[in-house]
Amino acid sequence: MKKYTVGILGATGLVGREIIGILLKRHFPIEKVVLLASARSAGSVQSVGDQSVTVQEVTPEAFDEIDILFSSAGGNVSREWVPQAVAHNCVVIDNTSAFRMEENVPLVVPEVNAEALKKHQGLIANPNCSTAQLVVALQPLHQAFEIQRLVVSTYQAVSGAGNQAVQELYMQTEQALSGQQVIPQVLPKTIAFNLIPFIGSFLESGYTDEEMKMTHEVHKIMGSEIPTCATCIRVPVANGHSESVNIEFKQPVTVEQVHETLKRAPGIVIQDDLQLRHFPTPQDISGTDPVYVGRVRQDVSHPNGINLWVVADNLRKGAALNAVQIAESLIEQDLL
Amino acid sequence: MKKYTVGILGATGLVGREIIGILLKRHFPIEKVVLLASARSAGSVQSVGDQSVTVQEVTPEAFDEIDILFSSAGGNVSREWVPQAVAHNCVVIDNTSAFRMEENVPLVVPEVNAEALKKHQGLIANPNCSTAQLVVALQPLHQAFEIQRLVVSTYQAVSGAGNQAVQELYMQTEQALSGQQVIPQVLPKTIAFNLIPFIGSFLESGYTDEEMKMTHEVHKIMGSEIPTCATCIRVPVANGHSESVNIEFKQPVTVEQVHETLKRAPGIVIQDDLQLRHFPTPQDISGTDPVYVGRVRQDVSHPNGINLWVVADNLRKGAALNAVQIAESLIEQDLL
Repeated sequence: MKKYTVGILGATGLVGREIIGILLKRHFPIEKVVLLASARSAGSVQSVGDQSVTVQEVTPEAFDEIDILFSSAGGNVSREWVPQAVAHNCVVIDNTSAFRMEENVPLVVPEVNAEALKKHQGLIANPNCSTAQLVVALQPLHQAFEIQRLVVSTYQAVSGAGNQAVQELYMQTEQALSGQQVIPQVLPKTIAFNLIPFIGSFLESGYTDEEMKMTHEVHKIMGSEIPTCATCIRVPVANGHSESVNIEFKQPVTVEQVHETLKRAPGIVIQDDLQLRHFPTPQDISGTDPVYVGRVRQDVSHPNGINLWVVADNLRKGAALNAVQIAESLIEQDLL
Repeated sequence: MKKYTVGILGATGLVGREIIGILLKRHFPIEKVVLLASARSAGSVQSVGDQSVTVQEVTPEAFDEIDILFSSAGGNVSREWVPQAVAHNCVVIDNTSAFRMEENVPLVVPEVNAEALKKHQGLIANPNCSTAQLVVALQPLHQAFEIQRLVVSTYQAVSGAGNQAVQELYMQTEQALSGQQVIPQVLPKTIAFNLIPFIGSFLESGYTDEEMKMTHEVHKIMGSEIPTCATCIRVPVANGHSESVNIEFKQPVTVEQVHETLKRAPGIVIQDDLQLRHFPTPQDISGTDPVYVGRVRQDVSHPNGINLWVVADNLRKGAALNAVQIAESLIEQDLL
């Protein structure tokens, strides 16, 4: 079996480290791992399985030996370095929003649209965390019953904003418990025992870019312009994004039909037991791979409506796992 | 001005204590305060302004001297004692769900349906916390533009489950921060750095009673069977309920129209500044009276849709404040 030299740009971040762990856990055919970061983070040593690997400063030449590059150091870093990596013949899986909506860049969740990889030109985009988990749950339902509209409210964990934000959640919480003043530094408002009712930056429409990512990315990945409206809220949870999803189908759909359809679908675990009151919570599923679905109910406000509660580990299915699955699918389809 | 003897059943609970504070702050015309509780809590001393009042055990005779009784000790206590209080000629404002849907019991949010008080027969019901704040924001919009459907996802604070639940939030959080095992005792699942994706008990439909309360109470208070579907989620916030509200109107409505309409409406503060990123958060507004609205956006998935973010102090507008406002309205309308 062919082995690949894998590069990770943003190796010291939450997602970068998660990618390393998942590559090893899933026995990805690795020849060598090259860790890249900005000058600021270069020189640090990171463990990759039982090896210690020194993080190199990213340079154009560093790309020469890399077959597959995972880029997860933020939009600005990707905009600067990803085109150069592609020019140096890396196949790049980019975890940022920098190139997601470009026409010649496939935006892929393998359970949904692996075939889109066939048209890649060296660059594949990984969707936003809250979109990835959503489309895994929606695509089988759309194929079976045709979705006509989506209203989504998110409950997004702090890890989606990076390592420092998670540290801030814990620090602020300790400060709040001991009666100290809390001054937000990483996140834009206090998160300890609070909600932040926006994520990202504002557009003129009053939506945030985070909210409109869901609208646009759902369309591109599912290949269908399903009208989609999102409200994205940050909650004081360390890891694991949750979503309250209201779906309008073309026809009436029962809870049983939803369960049956999702049971057969890839990447999904149903936790929906009224007797045991067993439903997915972010803390319970953090550190695991699937997308969890519970609280399936017929919508009492619409004859064709269904409500779902969708939870997944945003660092895994929402980021690192999906990126590694894209790489695996490229190999499977002989597209590397 | 006539003064009244006010009784509080459940005087030692979060809502009972909040009612005392609000009665005093709003200079309610009090002749005397009688604090009532179960045998278990009787005998304790509670401060009412600068007086110390001993909590009495609730008995039928205790009702004789009371003009207005606030009952907030839970549904079972209300079911047992409220009919007896009414029989002893108290006017009862009941904060539980015990009698809310009974036909001869007005369910009142004074900003919305104060005129319903005219038909009271000694018993008025105070709505569920998440409904009260919602209808304050909805009624002016419904009058102006006609609402045709509502999809609501809640972010409900722990104080809605009582004092012990708030203590549990803090205790679990300390345990989690120090790496100890967390065992839920008051709330049904771990709440520290987590979400509990249900509130109350389950119906066969898969909805919780908390969710269906919103559907039914919106209909009764607004006097209009607007199709309403709710998903109710508990978040690790001490106090202040938040709601992501998707509204379908009969006609297209702009953000400016919503702002203009709500600016003129009673009990509402708009916090919706994209430049300053100023929107309501539960921690910021905890301890205040208004219903706060922000994140007003035209729905990109529906030509007649609007999204709102509605936040209020669930112990105040959601419970104690609304109960006192009902009492004030009874006096104003000469219905006591």
